[in-house]
This record gives sequence, structure tokens and C-alpha cells, in this order.
Amino acid sequence: MRSSTPDIYEFARLDFDRDRRTGFGETVYGPGKTAGQLAEIFAAFRRKGRPVLATRVSAEQAAALAERLPDACYDPVSRTLASAWRTRRPVSRLDGTTAVLAAGTADLPVAEEAAKTVEFFGGRVERFYDVGIAGLHRLLGVIGKVRKADVVIAAAGMEGALPSVVAGLVSAPVIALPTSVGYGCGAGGVAAVLSMLSSCAEGVTVVNIDNGFGAAVAACRILRNRRA
Amino acid sequence: MRSSTPDIYEFARLDFDRDRRTGFGETVYGPGKTAGQLAEIFAAFRRKGRPVLATRVSAEQAAALAERLPDACYDPVSRTLASAWRTRRPVSRLDGTTAVLAAGTADLPVAEEAAKTVEFFGGRVERFYDVGIAGLHRLLGVIGKVRKADVVIAAAGMEGALPSVVAGLVSAPVIALPTSVGYGCGAGGVAAVLSMLSSCAEGVTVVNIDNGFGAAVAACRILRNRRA
Amino acid sequence: MRSSTPDIYEFARLDFDRDRRTGFGETVYGPGKTAGQLAEIFAAFRRKGRPVLATRVSAEQAAALAERLPDACYDPVSRTLASAWRTRRPVSRLDGTTAVLAAGTADLPVAEEAAKTVEFFGGRVERFYDVGIAGLHRLLGVIGKVRKADVVIAAAGMEGALPSVVAGLVSAPVIALPTSVGYGCGAGGVAAVLSMLSSCAEGVTVVNIDNGFGAAVAACRILRNRRA
Amino acid sequence: MRSSTPDIYEFARLDFDRDRRTGFGETVYGPGKTAGQLAEIFAAFRRKGRPVLATRVSAEQAAALAERLPDACYDPVSRTLASAWRTRRPVSRLDGTTAVLAAGTADLPVAEEAAKTVEFFGGRVERFYDVGIAGLHRLLGVIGKVRKADVVIAAAGMEGALPSVVAGLVSAPVIALPTSVGYGCGAGGVAAVLSMLSSCAEGVTVVNIDNGFGAAVAACRILRNRRA
Amino acid sequence: MRSSTPDIYEFARLDFDRDRRTGFGETVYGPGKTAGQLAEIFAAFRRKGRPVLATRVSAEQAAALAERLPDACYDPVSRTLASAWRTRRPVSRLDGTTAVLAAGTADLPVAEEAAKTVEFFGGRVERFYDVGIAGLHRLLGVIGKVRKADVVIAAAGMEGALPSVVAGLVSAPVIALPTSVGYGCGAGGVAAVLSMLSSCAEGVTVVNIDNGFGAAVAACRILRNRRA
Amino acid sequence: MRSSTPDIYEFARLDFDRDRRTGFGETVYGPGKTAGQLAEIFAAFRRKGRPVLATRVSAEQAAALAERLPDACYDPVSRTLASAWRTRRPVSRLDGTTAVLAAGTADLPVAEEAAKTVEFFGGRVERFYDVGIAGLHRLLGVIGKVRKADVVIAAAGMEGALPSVVAGLVSAPVIALPTSVGYGCGAGGVAAVLSMLSSCAEGVTVVNIDNGFGAAVAACRILRNRRA
Amino acid sequence: MRSSTPDIYEFARLDFDRDRRTGFGETVYGPGKTAGQLAEIFAAFRRKGRPVLATRVSAEQAAALAERLPDACYDPVSRTLASAWRTRRPVSRLDGTTAVLAAGTADLPVAEEAAKTVEFFGGRVERFYDVGIAGLHRLLGVIGKVRKADVVIAAAGMEGALPSVVAGLVSAPVIALPTSVGYGCGAGGVAAVLSMLSSCAEGVTVVNIDNGFGAAVAACRILRNRRA
Amino acid sequence: MRSSTPDIYEFARLDFDRDRRTGFGETVYGPGKTAGQLAEIFAAFRRKGRPVLATRVSAEQAAALAERLPDACYDPVSRTLASAWRTRRPVSRLDGTTAVLAAGTADLPVAEEAAKTVEFFGGRVERFYDVGIAGLHRLLGVIGKVRKADVVIAAAGMEGALPSVVAGLVSAPVIALPTSVGYGCGAGGVAAVLSMLSSCAEGVTVVNIDNGFGAAVAACRILRNRRA
Repeated sequence: MRSSTPDIYEFARLDFDRDRRTGFGETVYGPGKTAGQLAEIFAAFRRKGRPVLATRVSAEQAAALAERLPDACYDPVSRTLASAWRTRRPVSRLDGTTAVLAAGTADLPVAEEAAKTVEFFGGRVERFYDVGIAGLHRLLGVIGKVRKADVVIAAAGMEGALPSVVAGLVSAPVIALPTSVGYGCGAGGVAAVLSMLSSCAEGVTVVNIDNGFGAAVAACRILRNRRA
Repeated sequence: MRSSTPDIYEFARLDFDRDRRTGFGETVYGPGKTAGQLAEIFAAFRRKGRPVLATRVSAEQAAALAERLPDACYDPVSRTLASAWRTRRPVSRLDGTTAVLAAGTADLPVAEEAAKTVEFFGGRVERFYDVGIAGLHRLLGVIGKVRKADVVIAAAGMEGALPSVVAGLVSAPVIALPTSVGYGCGAGGVAAVLSMLSSCAEGVTVVNIDNGFGAAVAACRILRNRRA
Repeated sequence: MRSSTPDIYEFARLDFDRDRRTGFGETVYGPGKTAGQLAEIFAAFRRKGRPVLATRVSAEQAAALAERLPDACYDPVSRTLASAWRTRRPVSRLDGTTAVLAAGTADLPVAEEAAKTVEFFGGRVERFYDVGIAGLHRLLGVIGKVRKADVVIAAAGMEGALPSVVAGLVSAPVIALPTSVGYGCGAGGVAAVLSMLSSCAEGVTVVNIDNGFGAAVAACRILRNRRA
Repeated sequence: MRSSTPDIYEFARLDFDRDRRTGFGETVYGPGKTAGQLAEIFAAFRRKGRPVLATRVSAEQAAALAERLPDACYDPVSRTLASAWRTRRPVSRLDGTTAVLAAGTADLPVAEEAAKTVEFFGGRVERFYDVGIAGLHRLLGVIGKVRKADVVIAAAGMEGALPSVVAGLVSAPVIALPTSVGYGCGAGGVAAVLSMLSSCAEGVTVVNIDNGFGAAVAACRILRNRRA
Repeated sequence: MRSSTPDIYEFARLDFDRDRRTGFGETVYGPGKTAGQLAEIFAAFRRKGRPVLATRVSAEQAAALAERLPDACYDPVSRTLASAWRTRRPVSRLDGTTAVLAAGTADLPVAEEAAKTVEFFGGRVERFYDVGIAGLHRLLGVIGKVRKADVVIAAAGMEGALPSVVAGLVSAPVIALPTSVGYGCGAGGVAAVLSMLSSCAEGVTVVNIDNGFGAAVAACRILRNRRA
Repeated sequence: MRSSTPDIYEFARLDFDRDRRTGFGETVYGPGKTAGQLAEIFAAFRRKGRPVLATRVSAEQAAALAERLPDACYDPVSRTLASAWRTRRPVSRLDGTTAVLAAGTADLPVAEEAAKTVEFFGGRVERFYDVGIAGLHRLLGVIGKVRKADVVIAAAGMEGALPSVVAGLVSAPVIALPTSVGYGCGAGGVAAVLSMLSSCAEGVTVVNIDNGFGAAVAACRILRNRRA
Repeated sequence: MRSSTPDIYEFARLDFDRDRRTGFGETVYGPGKTAGQLAEIFAAFRRKGRPVLATRVSAEQAAALAERLPDACYDPVSRTLASAWRTRRPVSRLDGTTAVLAAGTADLPVAEEAAKTVEFFGGRVERFYDVGIAGLHRLLGVIGKVRKADVVIAAAGMEGALPSVVAGLVSAPVIALPTSVGYGCGAGGVAAVLSMLSSCAEGVTVVNIDNGFGAAVAACRILRNRRA
Repeated sequence: MRSSTPDIYEFARLDFDRDRRTGFGETVYGPGKTAGQLAEIFAAFRRKGRPVLATRVSAEQAAALAERLPDACYDPVSRTLASAWRTRRPVSRLDGTTAVLAAGTADLPVAEEAAKTVEFFGGRVERFYDVGIAGLHRLLGVIGKVRKADVVIAAAGMEGALPSVVAGLVSAPVIALPTSVGYGCGAGGVAAVLSMLSSCAEGVTVVNIDNGFGAAVAACRILRNRRA
């Protein structure tokens, strides 16, 4: 394998090309990082004039960062921390709209992590919250607007039925986003993720429990693709 | 415990009283019984002039019984075998209507086991089949009629969302009946039963997977209660 | 879907009609809400002269609310917070009695959540606590009274056998309420809920682990139905 | 480890001593053995004049053995095959009685495997079948006799509540024997074994699902102990 | 709810509109249907001059259909049965290419179900089979071509790592398709689906185990969206 | 059921008789009780001159009780609190010895809960700790003494192999006591309890994870039986 | 990625180099292949004069191959089919001995798959069968010989304790090989694999249930390494 | 068993011989031990002049030990505490190199526990961190160096694919080390361990989740073997 270095470099380069081509900002996973580490990472991106988003940043982390990162913006609901400085190059924009639905208010943090991430990557988001299927009139009241979206992210915990119902009513891609909202037999989101995977609605795809970030990236892959 | 016999007998008697009071027919669980055993059981009930219902009777069992039980009636969908002879005493009737809903055609055997059992116990049944939530218009097209029922049994496999949606649209008791229809992450009905137990709709109660008989008895307990 | 607005509105209206017709008070799920949010919700209901019940309210939440909600009543066992003000319209009453059984003292909080909820919705409750099946004489000592109830809610953790035994002794609907009391192989109520769903007693229906509120609503659906 | 041979032999010898001392017959596990292999094993024991019991022998295996083993006895319910020849030495007898209870008729094969094994090891068995807790009067009608037993084996599938109820009514050791009778959430005996392990009744011990043989050996260990 | 009929109809009509607008053919789920039922369904579509695809059609079903459906085409690998008659209206075509990858030869039936379904809906498919990650050079040998696809479906059983590796190498949407290929700890596809949901690669979405049809519909939702 | 009161009372009386006959002290489950409640319970037993044992008493509970219960004795390892006052009647004694084995030092609290409970009920205990099977010489070094016991309780976490090895070396009843010691795939004792139930050693019976109290009561049922 | 072809080829070449360097024969996974496909594969290897081994070949497959592959050798216990022709180049030999242990006779097929695979790859195997821990003297009787092996593969089903006991007695690498032998709580090998992973013996590594082939390859990786 | 003492002693002696022969230091499991207990253990080893390593030592434990153990060395990442005093006899050294790979930075503590343990036992370690498969170029960039190692330990959480990919690229033994890094469907490392056991790469063996110590001992067993 002595000669393997060149191809490896090439791979790295290609990967770099892809990053440059897409023009998307960088993202950081907050848990397990100290406030100091987060601050350093953000400072590095600020020096480069590049946008950066951290997810799952706790209120404690954010408080400790407040002084050191005056031009970053923390959202306590989605627990995201985003750079607010001027970026050197214009950020890529994604064509098309992502509808983010949440079944209940307890699903908001996960839905908002998805929404904020799509927006960070340059996508347009329409929010439809508290449209759980136990009160179907709420969903039916907004379904006309949801149908206009190019991608749908439907977040739900408990029995996780929202994406199945939505997928029967829209023709756009539907990304089911199970949340850990639930207890007993649905504790940690297990009922939600199983029911989403077992959905009788055709063409629903699923991400991990509470993975609002992943749902957003999946939506962006779809929208980015549209633009190409 | 030498003196315990009397109270025990009394218990037995009370139980017997309850049976006589309710006037319900007897039911037999088919699996594990030979055709000969089933035939003997049915013959005994015929001699007493009492109605009897066997559930989960296989087509093979039924075929082997056909000659010996000319006045019994086998339904291949619900796999129930019911006495068709004249009963000595009039069978109790249950006041009120039970709506039996099934999400997909694959859920029919379980839904029909429930429906046939309610009917055997003297209840009136309205069937609403193929009303799964992936095509919501089908459910909404019949919901007005479902709302008139006194009890609702909603059978679904896969993601099992039907009872949750129904419970948000009716005020009657809703018994969720998970079926073993499903595969992969929903194999054997596991996603359905978990999502029904985790339902965000208030007041849904659940029976075991494929337990159409149990759902029917629960409905009858409710209706019988009404009459009292 | 441009024309869908009217039917949606109609749905909302119908739903509203149902709410008005039933006359039941509103309920609020405590977890995840700040004391301030709870106080605002309660204040809104007080202004409308409507009754309201919050479930799963922690002692901390209640303490923080004590001053702001002098005419609300917190029960530390069931962890419910109920409005104690005069309601504008008389609250609907449910005909019939609900027997609430609890296997052990550790099951009391869940059983009481059920009992308090039934009472909030205008139902009459008879409590039978510490009647677990390991000391059968306790249950048999009260079974005569239990039999007079119109609906039975049987709460149990551990092996969860209480509803199965009870259902064999009464003819009323039996709602099995598994609690998270248990450890090891029964941790979190898993043995209880599985054994309740697998009950050999006919017609037992089951709600989620610790879902005293859901059991109560199911009982109320049954009783409300009786009245109709 | 060159010198390890002697002590190993000694171990073997001690083990052999224990076997000789206990005087119990040998047992053979049927599954995976051909009829020919079973016949050879039985022939070897016949030559030595020792008793032998095979468990889980299928009807097919037994049929194939019928001619070759005229002095063996096959029981189709428990699926045990026992030697019926005269043994050279008298078989050890166990003092005391084992009560074998079965909740339903479907639990009979497992209960009978336990009963037949206890009898093979020289123990006296009293059978109490169809005493499931859904019809409590059946159990209460025999509990006085059960209380006289020295060990109790309680077999149940479904929700597996029988041993918990029994253990509250007797002071003898209670061995809970879960059976694979059940479906859906209790499929394969999972609800039964979990509820038995989580029993709120004190001092219940549990064996593997369908392990009638193991329950019997545990009972024999207890009874053998008594005699010492 | 007397007045609910109109809006329901409207819903049905809208749904119908959506069907007509999309112009996609109909699909039928084979399991549980007799050859006669399948034949009737296909005949109905032939009369209407519309395309139809049946999935999970067994070789036995296909053999029984061969005579009655001379102008249908059965593929034994994907177990799909497709109409081969001339359709009245031209079938909609989907713009863009779907890359279908399969880790091992055992994953082919599921991958082919996906591929054939995409083709039935008018999409172009490029197949990359036997590119499992245990022999990485196979995947790297084709990754350049995979990168040109607009959507990627990556089917894998066992440890299910293929989609994670692929998602790090392409920017298109990646649909992870777990297969039931596996045994022991991975039996039935459980390791594959869990690892796909837990993927450290960003933006992977997952469908149910063996759900090639669902993965295909998800891909078509994405491609259809592109065209809009 | 109006007439059921007498038999019920009789049951209660019989139960009481059994308690009196056995002469065993009372036990109390500590968790969920305040120090005040525990103190009151102990005071009541002291007034009656009866022995009492509380299990799973935390160090915090014990500290709060220290002053109020000067003649009670807290053991921080087993977390048991036992009455140390003179009892009115002599406490029953159990004939025979119980060997309590523990695989590792982390299993000590559970093993000691078993040992202390057997001693409270008047049984003699021999302790063999740190005899896990990974260093077999430790077990073999004491097996001669273990063989002299009348009952064996073998506590182990992790892979839980100790009872299986022991049961092959002794003829006494072996009660397998899984502990929650373990992590990852054995977290909470799941590997231990499953391997104990699946033991290839004949006649091992199992109690719930960490249920030292239950194992002790099972041992006492066996020993009590011996005496009869 | 246009330029990626060269490096990819290089990867393939490197991989090929590794194959040639190791000199190991090829292996084929039998399930899912027709007898015809197997015959063709074997014929291809015969033409090249290279050794080949197929695993999990059913008796039916083997019977169908018998005529077409006269110089292949089928072993019905391990279900392996090995080439018996003269190989063009001498097959690599592995230095060192692999001890293959099996707890019970039911574990033999899996243990033999491991043994036959090691032998196919040129390793020397010593077999120690029926040395399960329930009769410890059997294992202790051979442990001196086991200690001389360079690698140990220990196969066990049920409670899977064998590798844990063995690892405490030898210093060589121990590969735990769980088998699917077991029922109830140990069905499919679940108890065995969990207890092996949770082993308190240090340095045990585990392969998938029934993966005798994988255990063998792991052993060969270790032995091959020795030689280097 | 009176005569069993000698052989037991012999076993103990043999075990002791093995310890002396291997010359490896002792290791201590930190959790559940007080700082005082750890300090005493370390003091005892210092008196004997022998090396000792404690694993899973919390920062709190370490802080409390700092003064009492001036010549011990705590590593906060791996949470290991190692003796730093001069050992009486030279510590055994292991021939060969162990490559320790970690997929992500969150896997570092577990990977470092493995690395530190190998080093404590006298082995040489090469670390390759942050080489997860989602960015394949990182792994490919170092694979040439990894191939030179004699044993590979590959730590990964989430979907756990790293060892599968690595095993296809190297010929040395690969020990898969799942970490508890993950959430939702991969919570606690469950997806990682299942996918590693189900790996399609041949000859991967697996240790328990987070068991860096066990992986290291397995590596040392392999390397020690090489030397023999």
C-alpha cells in the first residue's frame, strides 16, 4: 500500500471540491464539547468568514458562550447556535420550500432543529405546528398550504402517525421525523419510529429519533438536487 | 383450609349465576383442538339447545367438520364456526351498535372475527372496511356514520394509526385492535400495538394483536352495561 | 386544494360542536410547561369561567403556582391541579360509577390520576386500593362492591395480574392500567403491560403505562355513552 | 497442567458418586436425535437394567420407535418416552407430593412433561388442571388440596398470573413454569415469563419457557433435600 | 355530521385529481391475493388501457397467471408482475436517474423490486450490484458513476453499512433500503435498519426492511418534484 | 354477591392463620416510603413485640431514622433495616443451611439482601463471595462446603454463569439470583437473567434481577417445608 | 470524479495482491444458490486448480451436486462442501493449533463449520466436544490439552457460559461462538450471545450466532499473523 | 468431597503459575470503589513493587486520590489511573503493534481505554482517530499504516460500520469495539454492536459496548501468543 498516498489525497481533494461546490456552511454537534471548545471552533470560522451552525447546544453551554461570541445567535427552542457575522462569500441558497410540521408542542424543539438547519443551509421554511392527527381538523386546515411545499418534514412523537396521514395528502417527498416524546410503550420515540417505518403510506422515509438535523440535511439534498 | 369448600362452591355458583343472567352463548377457541373434539363440543351444546361460537377454526378443521355439523356455519374470512340450530332460550340481545373499522383488506379476518363475535353475542354491527389513513378521504367519507355507533372497534396493522385518527373524530368508546399485518419493523403487529398504546388521542384502549374476539367481548361489556 | 377551506372550517366547527355538546372541561398536560405557562392557561380558563384540570404537575410546579392560583387545588398524590372556581355553566355529570382499583400502594399515584380525572369529568368514583392478587383475600373482600360499578379501572405494576383476575369476577368493562412500578424484568411496567394485553380474561382492554388520564377518559367515553 | 489428570478423574468420580447416591434414572433430550439413535440409547439402558426417560419426543419419533422399543411407553400429551422394563436396582423414591397446576388446557403438554418427569424420578404428583385465574372459582375450588403439597409447579401461558395468585395462597415452594401458549404481545411465552419474574408474590422462582423438565428437576432437588 | 358528505366527496375528488395529474400507473400488493384475484385486477386495468404493477408476486402465483395474462410480464428476481399491454395514454416519465446499489447478491430481489418500480413509474435506473463495503474497491470502482445519479437507493442487509459509506461520497439524496438478509444478531434485517437509522453520515433516510417498493416511491416523489 | 362477605372473611382468617402458624416476621419494602413512615411502621411492630425487616432502605432513609429507632439495626451493604428489640414470642427458626454465593464484589449488596433476609426468617447462612467463574479455582476451592448446604442461592451479574456451574456440582436446590451488575449488552442484568433461565444445568430456578429478598423467601419456603 | 478510475483499479489490484499473498482458498456461502450455480462455481475453481469451500450447503443441495462434483467432499454435520481435487499451487498452511470446543452435541454443526473452515485454510484443529459447564469435570478433564492450543474457539448455545469459563483457564485468544441452540428465553441464541458479550472473563471476543465460518476466519487471522 | 481440597489447591497454584509466567500487571475496575479503597489497593501494589492499572476511574475519584497517590498517573480522557513507580521486576513486553482506530471524537474515551491498557501490558500502540466511514478519505488516508499493525482495534458508535470497512482492507485480526455513542435507535451502542456482530466482513470479532479494556486484553492475548 506504499503507493496509496496519491489516490487518498485525490479522494480528499475531491471531497474538498464537493464542499466548495456545494457552498454549504459547516455544522458542529454540540454535546460533549466544552463552551471553550465551541468558542474556539466558532472563532476559527469567524476568522475565515464562513458561516457555522452548532446543534444541541445546551442553555448552559450557550450562557457560557454569550460573552465570547457576541455575533452568534442562540435559539433556546431548537438549541441551535448560529454564526451571525458577515460571511466572506455569499451563502448558497436552496430553491424551493420545506414544510416543517410538528404534531404537538412537545415536538417543537426537534422540528425547530430541522427548520433552523434548513434555513442555515439557505432553504425557505414554512412551519405548521400543533397539527397532530388526534384533532384532524388542525391538519386539514393547513393541508392546502402544505401541498405547495417541495419537501415535507413531519415531526411527531407518541404514536407517530402524522407523516403517514400527510403522505397520503401530498405528492412531495415526506421525511418522517420521530421525536422522543412519549412514555411507557412509546418511551424515547420507539413507537413513533416503528410506526413511521411501517407506514402504510407509500414513499415515506424516516430518520433517527430526534434527528432534526438529519431530516434537514435530507431535505437539502433533495432541494439541492432540484437546482442542479 | 378444611372449611373452605362452602365458599368455593358459592363462588362457582355466583359465577354460574352471572352466566345465566347474561344469557350469552359460549365460545370455544379452535386452535389445538381436533375436528373430533370440536364436533363433540358442538354436539353437546346442540343437545342443550344453546348457541356456541368457535373462533380461529382453520379451513381444514372446518372441512373435517362439515358432515358432522350440518347445522353449524363456517365463515372462512373470520374463521369462525357458529351454531345454526334453534336455541332453547332466546339469545340475549345487546342494545346499541358497534362500528367495526378495518384499515386494509388484509385486516379483514381480524375485523370480521370481532364483528362476528359481537353479532353472536346479540349485538348489531356496522362494517367500515378499507378506510386506512393513507387515503384519508375513505375514512372521512364514512365518519358521519361511524359517529352514530355506540362503540367503535378500529382494526389496523402496519403503523396502526387508524384508531388514533378515529378517536379524534368520535365521542364513543374506541377499542383499538392491532393486527399482525406488517413486516420488517412492523412484523407481527408490533408497530401497530405500540403506536395504539402510545396514541395521542385520548381514551383509546387496546387489545392484543389479532384479538378480534377480545375486542368484541370488550364492546359487549360496554353495551351490556348500557342496558343494565 | 384551493377550495378545501370551507370543509376544513366545517370540520373545525363540528369538532367545536362536539366539545360544546359534551360539556366536559379542558385538560392540560403538565410536563414541559413552566409554572408561568400553567398559570396563564389557568387564568384564561378562569376568565372564561370554565373548569380545567392539569395532570402530571410536579410538586415544584405546584409550589411555584400556589400564590398565583389561589383558587386552584393541587393533589400531591395524583399530581393533578384542578380549578376550584365557580364555573359559568354547570359541568356535565356522568351517570354511573367507576371503580378504581390499585394493586399496591406504589400504584396509587397512577390510580389517583385516573380517579381524579373521572371526577373532574363529572363521574362518581369508588376506590379500592391495595387489593393486589398476592393477597387474594383483600380483593375478594371488596369484589361485591366492585361488581356494582359500571366501569372498572384496575391499576397494577409488577406482574400486572389484577385486571385479569378482576375481569373474571365482574361483567362490567374492565380497563387495565399498567403502572411503571417494577424493576428488573418488569422495569418501567413492561411486564405489566404485556401481561395485561395477553390476559386470558376476556374483554380486558389496556392503556399505556402510567396513563391514568387515558384510562379515565376511556371510562368517561363509556359512561357518556350510557347517558346518550 | 501435566499433573491435572488425577484431580480431573477425581471430579468425574465424585460426580459419578453423586449419581449413584441419588439413584435417579437418566434422562434424554429428544429433539435432534433420530429414532435410531433414541432406540440405541434406550437399548443400552435396558441392557444395564436402568430406567430412562426421553422428553420432547415427537409423535413421528415415537411411531418409528414403537416396534423396536416394545417395553417403552410413549405419552403423546407430555411427549415423553419412558422405559417400562424392570430395573435392576429399585428406583429411588422421593418423599412428599408435588402439585402440578395448569392454567389452561393448552398448557397441559408442558405441565404433563413436568408431572411425568417428577414421577419418573420417584415423586408423587397431584394434578390440578384448567385452574386459570380468569375463572378464579376453579382455583379456589382446589386450593385446599394444593396447600397440602410439598412443592407446587404452576404452569401458565398468556399473562402467566397463576403462580402469583397461588403463591399468595400456599406456603410451599412455588415453581413458576411459563408456557409458550400465547400470541401477539405474549407470543412464545414472553409475557408469561416476564410477569412471573416480576411477581408481587414473595418467593416465586421461575424456569425457562416450556421447561417442564427443568421445573420437575427443581422440584426433585427440593424433595430430595427433604429426605436427606 | 349530516352535512359532511359534500366535503368528503370533494376530498375524494381532489385525490382523484392528484392521481390523474401525476399520471402514474397503479400498483398492487401481491401477498394474500389469489391468482384469480390478481388476474381480475389485471384484466380490469387492461380494459381501461392503464398500466399496472404487482409486487411480491410469488412464482406460484405467476405460474397460475401465465395463461390468463399473456401480455403481462413476470420477473422472478424482483417478483414483480407488470402489464405489457399498450396503454391508452402515454405513461408519465420522470426526469433524472436513480442509482440502485445492492451490497450483496442476496440483496438483489429487494434492490430489483426498487429498480423495477422506479422504471414502472417512468424513471431511469442505473444498477450497481455487489458493491458491499467488505470489499471497498468494488464500491470505489463505480462511485464516479453513482455520483451522477439524481437519487441513490442503497440496499444492504447484514450490518447495513453501505448507505452510510455512500452518503459520504455523493451529494444526492440517499435512501437507505435495509434488507432482511442476515441471521443471528442481524436476523430479519434488524441490524441493518438500526445501523442505517443511526448512520453517522448526514441526511440518510430509511425505509422499512425489504421495502423496495417504498424506496422506489420515495425516489419518484423526489424526481417528480424536480420536474414540477 | 351480597352473601360473599363471610367466605371472604374466612379467607382473610385463613391467611392470618397461616401467618401465625409460620411465625415469620414481617417485612417492609423501603423505596417510596418516607423516613417518618418507616419509623411509624417500626414503632407499631415494636409495640406488638414483633420482629420486622425493611429492605432497600437507603443510607439517607437510615440516617433520618437513626435517632427515632435506636433499637433497629441498619446494614449499609444489604441496605436492610432490622428490628433489634426483644420479640414477644420466640421467632421461628428454619432448619438447614442456605449457602449464599456471589460472583463478584459488585454483587454483594444483592447477595447480602438475600443472606440478611434468610437470617431474619431464622435461617442459617454460609457466605461464599467472590467466587465468579472467570477464576474457577475460587469456586472449586469452596465447593466442598457449598455441597453441604440445603439450599443454594447463587448471585451473579454480567454473564450470570455462576448458578449454571454450581448446579452441576451440587444436588441441593439452586436459586439463581441475577444482579443488575453489567453494562452494554448486559446492562441492568439482562444477560444474567436470560442466561440463568436458559441454563443447561438441570433444575435451576430464577428470581427477578436484584431480587435478593425474593430469593431468600424462596429458600425459606424450601427450608420451612423441610421442617414440616 | 472523472479521474477516479486509476486509483480504484489500484485498490482492486492491491486487494488482489493481498489475496495472492495470503494464498488462501476461496469460500462460497451456500444459501440462496441453486445446485446448478454451486456446481458452476466449483467447476470454475477446478479449472483453475484452486481450492474452494462452500458453507451452509443443505443435504438437498449436496445430493443434487453429487454426480456433477465427484471430486468434491460433502460433510453433512458441518454442512460444508470442499473441493477434493489437486490444487495447482500448494495451499498455504497456518502455523499453530486451533482448539475447537463445543458445549453440547447440538452445538456440533456450528463447531464443525468452524473446524472444517480452519482446516480448509490450512490450520490444525483439535476438537473438544460435549464439554459444557453443567458437567464441569468434562471440561476440566481436557483443559490441559486446550491450554496447548494457540487459539481457542468455544461454541455454546443455551446460557453460553463455556467461553467465559475457558477464558479463565487459558491464556490464548478465546473466540466465543454462540449457537442458536436454545429455546424460550434463549431462543435463537440470544442468551448465549448476550452472556458472551457480557463475560466477566477478560479478553473474550464474540462472533455472530452460528457464525462458525467467521470464528474460523478470525482464528486464521490470528494464526496468519503469527507466521508473518 | 472431603478429598477435593488438594486438586483445588493445585488449580489455584496453576493459576498462580500462569500469572507469574505472563508477568502482566494487575488491573482494577474503578466503579463502585471509594477513593480510599483505590488508594489502599494501589498502596499494596506499590509495596510489592508491582504495576497496577485502574480503569473507569472518575475525575472525582482521581481528585480525591491525587494527594495520596503522588506516583500514580491519571488520564482524564481514558479515565485510567496507572502506577508510575519503579517496578521490582521488569514488566513483560508484547511484541507487535496494535492499531487503535476511533470513528469519531466521541469514541475517544473508549478507544483510549483500549490503547492505555495495551500500553500498560507492554504493547506498542498506533492511534488513528476520527477516521469514521462517513468521510471515507480520512480512513483511506491512513489505511497503509493500519495495514502494518499486528492487531487492529476499531472503535465506533452510531452505526458502527468502521470495523467492517477496515476488516476488508487489512489481513490482521480486527477487534470491533462498539461504543455507547449514539441516540434514538442507536442509543447506548445497540446499533453499533448489532451491526458489528452482523458484519459482512469476514473474521471480525466483537467485545461488549464500551469495553475498551476487554478489547485490549483480547489484543494482548493475540500478541502474547505471537511471542510464545
